[in-house]
Amino acid sequence: MDEQAKKTALRMIPYGLFVLTSKSKDGSELSAATVNWVTQTSFAPPLVVVGVKNDSGAHKHIKESGVFAVNVVGKDQLDLAYTFFKPTQREGNTLNGQAFENGPATGVPLLTATPAWWECRLVAEVAKGDHTTFIGEVVEAGVRTQDQTILMRDHNLNYGG
Amino acid sequence: MDEQAKKTALRMIPYGLFVLTSKSKDGSELSAATVNWVTQTSFAPPLVVVGVKNDSGAHKHIKESGVFAVNVVGKDQLDLAYTFFKPTQREGNTLNGQAFENGPATGVPLLTATPAWWECRLVAEVAKGDHTTFIGEVVEAGVRTQDQTILMRDHNLNYGG
Repeated sequence: MDEQAKKTALRMIPYGLFVLTSKSKDGSELSAATVNWVTQTSFAPPLVVVGVKNDSGAHKHIKESGVFAVNVVGKDQLDLAYTFFKPTQREGNTLNGQAFENGPATGVPLLTATPAWWECRLVAEVAKGDHTTFIGEVVEAGVRTQDQTILMRDHNLNYGG
Repeated sequence: MDEQAKKTALRMIPYGLFVLTSKSKDGSELSAATVNWVTQTSFAPPLVVVGVKNDSGAHKHIKESGVFAVNVVGKDQLDLAYTFFKPTQREGNTLNGQAFENGPATGVPLLTATPAWWECRLVAEVAKGDHTTFIGEVVEAGVRTQDQTILMRDHNLNYGG
């Protein structure tokens, strides 16, 4: 295989940015990580796929609790996205300095600064590579503000290839 | 669940457009369909997820042959994308009027007008909704021209929610 062509071609998939949130089984630990490998894969039921690094806190928590949320990063929220490249630090009702509330359906944290979110219950997973493909059914959703999702390519960011 | 919020939130996932190509088991039938539910989900091995409608020709062919290709639709190729919303008609070395060649690794059709493509071998599938989540390992790729992928939101197109 032409490795350079593979990298270039796969980097042509356009991506937004999302903060993936989850919790440990007993809810005592929370995780929040910026991800981009997200797509819907069914209307009925509404299913969403997220690719999550195998050695990440989010991966551990989703495996344990079977629930997660996707928080949409708005087009002017690059700083917020960067915040969640770092390990998750909770202080009161903040994660890495960002306020959160508990999701109504699953109890996972929802970042109140983001324009929209949805909560998922895990229905399937495929562990075949360095990331696991988690498939979640959307069980609750909310929209806080009208905004467009940030686009990685507008900021010369890549995670793929 | 708030159905309107679910629809609005899920439609915030930004998508490109891609022509998914495949073939029947014996190679006598070819399929080409415009899709948008595409994301990478692993670097090593390189894995890609595609959500494919259960009652489509592409779905039948991928199940039969276990191979498919993703052809990237360039930013000025909206007409090409629309062409493959229609049933696939082969005439000589064209599909719906678009020239193709056979992929070097899998033999599935590659549209020569598109800026980039990759071929996949099916490694897993999850059938939980009205679309099937196919997970393919990228086995060959090519880049024909420098271009950006078309963005659905730039054309007020939605397939999600």
